[in-house]
Amino acid sequence: MKLTCLFSLATLAVSVLGSRPTPEPKFTFLFSANLTRGPQIIYETNEVGTEVKAFQALTAGGTVRGPKLNATIVSGTALASANSDGTIEADASWLIKTHDGAMILVTEKAKIPYINVLFETSSTNYTWLNNVTAWASPQDGAMGSYSLNYWHISSDS
Amino acid sequence: MKLTCLFSLATLAVSVLGSRPTPEPKFTFLFSANLTRGPQIIYETNEVGTEVKAFQALTAGGTVRGPKLNATIVSGTALASANSDGTIEADASWLIKTHDGAMILVTEKAKIPYINVLFETSSTNYTWLNNVTAWASPQDGAMGSYSLNYWHISSDS
Amino acid sequence: MKLTCLFSLATLAVSVLGSRPTPEPKFTFLFSANLTRGPQIIYETNEVGTEVKAFQALTAGGTVRGPKLNATIVSGTALASANSDGTIEADASWLIKTHDGAMILVTEKAKIPYINVLFETSSTNYTWLNNVTAWASPQDGAMGSYSLNYWHISSDS
Amino acid sequence: MKLTCLFSLATLAVSVLGSRPTPEPKFTFLFSANLTRGPQIIYETNEVGTEVKAFQALTAGGTVRGPKLNATIVSGTALASANSDGTIEADASWLIKTHDGAMILVTEKAKIPYINVLFETSSTNYTWLNNVTAWASPQDGAMGSYSLNYWHISSDS
Repeated sequence: MKLTCLFSLATLAVSVLGSRPTPEPKFTFLFSANLTRGPQIIYETNEVGTEVKAFQALTAGGTVRGPKLNATIVSGTALASANSDGTIEADASWLIKTHDGAMILVTEKAKIPYINVLFETSSTNYTWLNNVTAWASPQDGAMGSYSLNYWHISSDS
Repeated sequence: MKLTCLFSLATLAVSVLGSRPTPEPKFTFLFSANLTRGPQIIYETNEVGTEVKAFQALTAGGTVRGPKLNATIVSGTALASANSDGTIEADASWLIKTHDGAMILVTEKAKIPYINVLFETSSTNYTWLNNVTAWASPQDGAMGSYSLNYWHISSDS
Repeated sequence: MKLTCLFSLATLAVSVLGSRPTPEPKFTFLFSANLTRGPQIIYETNEVGTEVKAFQALTAGGTVRGPKLNATIVSGTALASANSDGTIEADASWLIKTHDGAMILVTEKAKIPYINVLFETSSTNYTWLNNVTAWASPQDGAMGSYSLNYWHISSDS
Repeated sequence: MKLTCLFSLATLAVSVLGSRPTPEPKFTFLFSANLTRGPQIIYETNEVGTEVKAFQALTAGGTVRGPKLNATIVSGTALASANSDGTIEADASWLIKTHDGAMILVTEKAKIPYINVLFETSSTNYTWLNNVTAWASPQDGAMGSYSLNYWHISSDS
């Protein structure tokens, strides 16, 4: 695809009813991830001693389970920073290996507990993920586990 | 807020019915943006001459209109790159000035035409945007304009 | 080049004399840039009102002059943030057009006034820049101009 | 420090002799790092099967030794991508713990084998690193180790 047509996007039928355009985007469930995390390590505090930046390794062995994607977690890293207004931003990159051997990079930018998500892979079975924008948030983390639900966002009518 | 409790997130009531967890996340309409863009400038082609990376300035004067946010566009820049599988990724940062004088930075990571969006500001009237994860996609760009709808994604029930 | 040999790097002859390894890296002068900047726009202050994040557009028309590179500046954007210890970080992306028509993206990560720099282009005359790591800092900005010197860092003996 | 004076930088005495401005920047040796890396995992190949993107975890236990900094490596991650012109870019983030207990984040952007480096910490003994721009390249990796020399770049005369 040529970049000269980068923004020459297919026309989407849209009408505006009141302040809410239609059609609305929709969510399709992608998977649930059970992550095993290492300790959070603070590497920056601010002048009054508040912890403002943290590093965290993601441990191998967690699982990803969903209708179209089943995988184990290989490794990853998250960096988080707290702003003075209480917002916590986090950036994470982690790698998963699917049950049929594909490697997929997951890249996240979050305003905790809400997470914007992108994927990268060249495995034939999962190239559809390369054009997916997704969103995740945690569910109840019973038993010390850390579990999140991932949703595919699209505008397909 | 201390980072030691970064991931000690509030428990969200979730039950799994079939493969689709509940409650689902939801969309709240944020605003429509009419962007005026400068020319796309290709700065990288690949070995067979396909255009793979482009730079684009966002011109001042576009508008943002929505139920809770009305603004004009100050300036911005987008970088796009095309992968061999046809996917186009884009990163953009642009600044808007609201009708009541607040400055808000909009940061986007896209798999065209789908866009993950975050905001940053310290204006009192808009600090709620700092914890918003949003998603955008273009609507019909009649008359040469470039128009997108932005949606706030949340898990509030 | 295959990534499997990503870190199978050519052996560099190094001996350690005292605490200073040899050979040392060296600087080669690349160019001086005279940048024309728009106003800095603060989009975030902290809880005590200190300005901590700023946006700045880089205006077209500045110049790049050097032994191997002469160009004009097309456009660009810089984002800066101030930490509580007084450090100012900045990220910038800007595009230049050389006198022979090549487009080159300049990407910078700075701890003001020191700047780490990378380049991207596919123009045949300038592909050597793609493997350059560079460093810049400002020189005397007489007459209100904003001028920086850029140096190529290498370990060639 | 206010961002309104972000670019109101201290005047540096500079004169241009031929095409090489003076004074030149200089290198100060920071440390040598012996990194232990996990396997490189390819997560993207291009349409002709060339490996173009790789993920690599950095294993705990490596060492950092230098005149002002001695530390062990806690953890980290690197992402590398190969361009069609043979250039390999890499981004890495890793955490070190100094012998006196400070945590320091190391952030790198590389055109292999050349690496631009920044640091972040709030430990009192190492806050000077927050304003350091550094550069690294590998030395001879005898015995399967992976060793790099890190240099502080500055313009102090």
